[in-house]
Amino acid sequence: MALEIERKFLVDMSKLSNLPFGIDIKQGYIKTIDNSVVRVRIKGNKGFLTIKGKNSGASRLEFEYEIPYDDANEMLEKLCSKPIIDKTRYEIRYENHLWELDVFYGDNEGLVVAEIELENEEEQFALPPWVTKEVTEDIRYFNNQLMENPYKNWK
Amino acid sequence: MALEIERKFLVDMSKLSNLPFGIDIKQGYIKTIDNSVVRVRIKGNKGFLTIKGKNSGASRLEFEYEIPYDDANEMLEKLCSKPIIDKTRYEIRYENHLWELDVFYGDNEGLVVAEIELENEEEQFALPPWVTKEVTEDIRYFNNQLMENPYKNWK
Repeated sequence: MALEIERKFLVDMSKLSNLPFGIDIKQGYIKTIDNSVVRVRIKGNKGFLTIKGKNSGASRLEFEYEIPYDDANEMLEKLCSKPIIDKTRYEIRYENHLWELDVFYGDNEGLVVAEIELENEEEQFALPPWVTKEVTEDIRYFNNQLMENPYKNWK
Repeated sequence: MALEIERKFLVDMSKLSNLPFGIDIKQGYIKTIDNSVVRVRIKGNKGFLTIKGKNSGASRLEFEYEIPYDDANEMLEKLCSKPIIDKTRYEIRYENHLWELDVFYGDNEGLVVAEIELENEEEQFALPPWVTKEVTEDIRYFNNQLMENPYKNWK
């Protein structure tokens, strides 16, 4: 178990020159009734099953387990709602914090968000020059919402 | 992954004299929208997370993972819908098949069901003298339904 505290920002890609090596992520969701999240993810060649509790501000309970790749693949194909989210994740260190930059494809092409994970809600951190607006509490940017209402439909 | 094929029957406990050693099970569900099942279970001193696909007759996709006991306990307490299902499971071998007998407590006190798991839907098996009516397809007896509408409310 971990209490997950994340903050999420939009990204101005024109201010990022060289991206590090990225890892492909495909993820899908089993739709729940009460805002808890059941996520199946393939990250590179590994499978993961993640359960998250309801959001409480930037904090939420998170339980993540590695599962066989083939299981994850079969769950994505047969049990998860469509479309599956497809993105590349880049990890970028900026002044002692690790940022995860997600570049989306498919129905969310054009969307780039950066997330930072914090130890507690009061932890201070420096904003990289390439992040713009904070969208932590904007549910449109939740990955399970990007499945329901992808970025291409926003305009 | 396994394709789970189960048949379920009611039980006449008066025809069962000695029960073997049973194991306590507590289980809860994260409510889903589309009939797939996300189950958290504590069985004895072990935790499990199980994802099941939609039912198709007596068959359904099932993915089960052992998880830390403390995780299962915290998920049951904080993420699963209430009430939590509480039962004792007895395993009884009858003519080359293993039956799982579930004796329920709490809001489902008085309910006893027996399940047999089969290799395929055509597999033959002998009915023990202590089983009565088959209820495989009766959704009231699904454990996630017993949470929504417990046995004590049926009359």
